[in-house]
Amino acid sequence: MVTFDFIENKKLQKQIEFAIEIDKMKQILRRNLIADGSKREDDAAHSWHLAVMAMILEEYSAEKIDVNRVVKIALVHDLVEVYAGDTFAYDAKGYEDKEEREKEAATKLFGMLEGEQGAQMRALWDEFEAGETAEAKYANAIDRIQPLLLNYLTDGHTWKMGGVSSAQVYKRMDIIRTATPELWCIVEGVIKNSIEKGILKP
Amino acid sequence: MVTFDFIENKKLQKQIEFAIEIDKMKQILRRNLIADGSKREDDAAHSWHLAVMAMILEEYSAEKIDVNRVVKIALVHDLVEVYAGDTFAYDAKGYEDKEEREKEAATKLFGMLEGEQGAQMRALWDEFEAGETAEAKYANAIDRIQPLLLNYLTDGHTWKMGGVSSAQVYKRMDIIRTATPELWCIVEGVIKNSIEKGILKP
Repeated sequence: MVTFDFIENKKLQKQIEFAIEIDKMKQILRRNLIADGSKREDDAAHSWHLAVMAMILEEYSAEKIDVNRVVKIALVHDLVEVYAGDTFAYDAKGYEDKEEREKEAATKLFGMLEGEQGAQMRALWDEFEAGETAEAKYANAIDRIQPLLLNYLTDGHTWKMGGVSSAQVYKRMDIIRTATPELWCIVEGVIKNSIEKGILKP
Repeated sequence: MVTFDFIENKKLQKQIEFAIEIDKMKQILRRNLIADGSKREDDAAHSWHLAVMAMILEEYSAEKIDVNRVVKIALVHDLVEVYAGDTFAYDAKGYEDKEEREKEAATKLFGMLEGEQGAQMRALWDEFEAGETAEAKYANAIDRIQPLLLNYLTDGHTWKMGGVSSAQVYKRMDIIRTATPELWCIVEGVIKNSIEKGILKP
């Protein structure tokens, strides 16, 4: 096994070990495909996409936001899946113990970083989960619209797999209505067109 | 073909089309493998990893930096590869026209975003390429150490493929010596151990 014991600064050693541990995000596959339908999206690529979209859509946040914090939130919002795995958005059963599984994972993962740094990273994740700050609401809205677009582009791949109806999609997208109202037209357009194409149940 | 013509706000339509265009980053494969050796790393996952590593290793920058800008730089530093493709770090021939290819790609890609926003994104990419600001130097250093770690963990995969010697690796890592001197011990340790293991030519 490859170790980083040779790094004498033990704080730095742990930071490098953390950096390697989160590499597992590249293997955690989400249900949805990437835009061209060639493969499933992984958590690392999804988090990157979200962060860039947060950068370019900032002006549509209903509340004033610190976009730098949103970008950081986007980068860490799925990190706990390194241990807890991805829970499918429309999987009611998976959601039953999602919170518990993810909190345990957060304690384990962010505990790898010493003191303040681990706590700061954890705080970003907690903020996203709580969804109470303007930044968390905006990040959650972008986290909804990103897979909506990918599903739309891949003939409703995830919707078909889960037998999902338009009512369920509307419900899941609801945060967009208040956090980024100018983006709501995208939700409506995508759902309307998807029903017409027969890739989403009315 | 799926279009976003239904979005009445034409600025927003272009932003969404940009968000979809950069999804191609998830298909652009780098030469190196991910940490467990199971597949090649793609540009989206690499950019995400770099951004998170930049967050956690900030304290090792020799110069004072605005880490928020570094994170943004990390997120966009490889975007031009959507059109220009990835150029292997040790491919001298590929590097001959790399600059020209990438500049053309940048004009095309960032031109998708209207006015100021396209220019701002381009400026982040230009800053990374020029490597002159403290933020760009730090970002470049992290962009060197990330694949170094992955190569080390995957039995020198990229080094073997390219017949790379330790002198070449030392040269490529040189920016780390000045931008993040406290991380230089990692370069030295990795190279020393890799030579001992026979995964890197002395």
